[in-house]
Amino acid sequence: MTRRNLFYAQSGGVTPVINASAAAVIQTAREHPKRIGKVLAGQNGILGALQENLIDTSCETKGSIEGLIRTPGGAFGSCRYKLKSFAENQAEYERLITVFKAHNIGYFLYNGGGDSADTCLKVSQISEQMGYPIQAIHVPKTIDNDLPLTDNCPGFGSVAKYVAISTREAALDIESMCATSTKVFILEVMGRHAGWIAGASSLAATERGDAPHIILFPEIAFDQTKFLSKVSDCVKRFGYCVVVASEGTSTADGRLLADQGETDAFGHAQLGGLAPLLASMVKEHLGFKYHWAVADYLQRAARHIASQTDVDQAIALGRAAVELALEGANAIMPTIERKPGKQYRWRIGAAPLHRVANREKKMPRRFISKDGFAVTAAGKAYFEPLIAGEAYPDYHRGMPRYTRLKKVLVPKRCIPWQT
Amino acid sequence: MTRRNLFYAQSGGVTPVINASAAAVIQTAREHPKRIGKVLAGQNGILGALQENLIDTSCETKGSIEGLIRTPGGAFGSCRYKLKSFAENQAEYERLITVFKAHNIGYFLYNGGGDSADTCLKVSQISEQMGYPIQAIHVPKTIDNDLPLTDNCPGFGSVAKYVAISTREAALDIESMCATSTKVFILEVMGRHAGWIAGASSLAATERGDAPHIILFPEIAFDQTKFLSKVSDCVKRFGYCVVVASEGTSTADGRLLADQGETDAFGHAQLGGLAPLLASMVKEHLGFKYHWAVADYLQRAARHIASQTDVDQAIALGRAAVELALEGANAIMPTIERKPGKQYRWRIGAAPLHRVANREKKMPRRFISKDGFAVTAAGKAYFEPLIAGEAYPDYHRGMPRYTRLKKVLVPKRCIPWQT
Repeated sequence: MTRRNLFYAQSGGVTPVINASAAAVIQTAREHPKRIGKVLAGQNGILGALQENLIDTSCETKGSIEGLIRTPGGAFGSCRYKLKSFAENQAEYERLITVFKAHNIGYFLYNGGGDSADTCLKVSQISEQMGYPIQAIHVPKTIDNDLPLTDNCPGFGSVAKYVAISTREAALDIESMCATSTKVFILEVMGRHAGWIAGASSLAATERGDAPHIILFPEIAFDQTKFLSKVSDCVKRFGYCVVVASEGTSTADGRLLADQGETDAFGHAQLGGLAPLLASMVKEHLGFKYHWAVADYLQRAARHIASQTDVDQAIALGRAAVELALEGANAIMPTIERKPGKQYRWRIGAAPLHRVANREKKMPRRFISKDGFAVTAAGKAYFEPLIAGEAYPDYHRGMPRYTRLKKVLVPKRCIPWQT
Repeated sequence: MTRRNLFYAQSGGVTPVINASAAAVIQTAREHPKRIGKVLAGQNGILGALQENLIDTSCETKGSIEGLIRTPGGAFGSCRYKLKSFAENQAEYERLITVFKAHNIGYFLYNGGGDSADTCLKVSQISEQMGYPIQAIHVPKTIDNDLPLTDNCPGFGSVAKYVAISTREAALDIESMCATSTKVFILEVMGRHAGWIAGASSLAATERGDAPHIILFPEIAFDQTKFLSKVSDCVKRFGYCVVVASEGTSTADGRLLADQGETDAFGHAQLGGLAPLLASMVKEHLGFKYHWAVADYLQRAARHIASQTDVDQAIALGRAAVELALEGANAIMPTIERKPGKQYRWRIGAAPLHRVANREKKMPRRFISKDGFAVTAAGKAYFEPLIAGEAYPDYHRGMPRYTRLKKVLVPKRCIPWQT
């Protein structure tokens, strides 16, 4: 049985638990020294392979790898870089093969979201189309929770927990001040095309009247009149109103409410600034004193309040990806399957990559209330188990102890990459 | 020895630990049933006294009061309401005496910041000026940490911890993405006139090059050229730049960078929107891809990651306030004194209210680096012990269990208040 190296890389926006998947990949690979040589991690995702910047994870101690489980960010560097098609840029694929050959890489594990699944799928096709034997496995992660064929995505549960807790906490603040001060609070959260993150804020409420009073989903066309009327009604009934808004909130014609007219490397609009926009709308039409917050990166880096379920699943998926590789699988992604029954239980499944790449799973309509401003009981039942458990990091002098790796690069064997 | 009731109220912006002071006040009062009758809490601060909305805390269980120690917001409602001077509105003071008399209130404990200290001072003068015997004690709290004569203020340590952790976490995110994505991240934090909160973000850094790379203080006049040059330099050296900006950042002529032209009930400008302003500055002049976050209420409500030191001090000050009242003190505020020596140790002191009210303690210049963008070693040594320890709340189904009180109002005995 040949012994080949495993390439692992992180792609797209990072999450509080992507490093937990990385740790599991490395730990599982180390359990199979006869089949897997070294785990070489790409510095900055797929760019690490193209530029032959390969981090030798065998230089990292057992303790450091274990520490990754409790460290946010992307320990090896991530990237927003989309491989073109074979037809458009064959040279890129030839370059990958050159680097893979030079470093005896037989396993390609890519840890990312929908766009990254596309990259992974393209790599998986190298074997077939270009005759180089490689197995490509996608390790899912995305705080957006928008990958199809998996019940949920690692990263989401922790962001959901952060957003639900932050909503509950901020609501207590506003409630105690609303008699003489702020009446409307708007929290903008991530979610370009799907309202999963905003939806999770519904867990902040346990009794009628609890915040959030209004959730804005990308799935529901924004109607200013209905929105303002609901805000006004909440202030009248409860004395204050808490709004949680997805950055991707759009009008009926599909235009983003807060389009800044800029796009990222994947052609996505770069969002932000919805909260102040909604606040000025409230001020102008209703005259209420407002406050707003934009959580931005804080929400997807908040490892200090990660969900234990999320961490467990990130680890399980990293482990499953290596096991799938050892079983000879290719073009596949391990998934989370929710078992039927009242008690939440889950197991690892698998989905073919061609059915995953470039597809987005939105919030089902049955998870959103009839008026479009809240989450139904079915939706809350979906969300709740994903935020269960507190996976606290260790602390040192009041601050979380996050792991930094040595990141020793493997000596280069190829000529520099020319783009 | 006469037995009189104790009035307690919360004032101004709430904190993650103001309820811990409330719990301590109530618990300590309950230990002295011969001297103190009931603790009557003002609903919405001093308004509760004026409107005779008095919450009977004796209806709350021991467990509920204990639960307040782990609950953010202001459990009895807070307010932004400033008493006018005797000369301007004597009727207000007469009303207070009417309510105090009707409910046998002999102790007035007011839990707030600088403006509230002024209110408390005015109440303390009722004894003298209007012949009604009452002792007024101010229980300090403010996330702004700007009260004089106390080493620090309850509420600040927890916000400092939240901001330092959030900065470290977001920085790991940006660092892992900066090769192909965001280069500049701006976090806007609270702090109208003093940079304590922004300064605490310095604890995120342990090694040279660590974030935050730039801190903007209200104490240092903003210079756009120097700022942009520093941002550019950081991106060149580290690949990315993390900026933590106080909302009160101002130009040399004292104009707020992000003045929205609105004021609160105390005449303070209502701030917000500095982060997007700085981001657009960076974009326009340097062209870097940016992200920004505005923590707003999330920072001062984040009980989920409160500092244990902060909680301990909030409790100690609540207890000390009742003890001072029992000793016959008036017009006084218990304080935190830092004991000399390398190891952090503190004790309770006291300061006369006329030396506290309406004074703001800014960051001393020696805590700010020469270039005005960082915190010195002396500053970090000041901040560090204040964030020590993690005072986690209890959790239930993934969410923190925060206490809600019954808030039973005492039957009214006076005619309604006419403003």
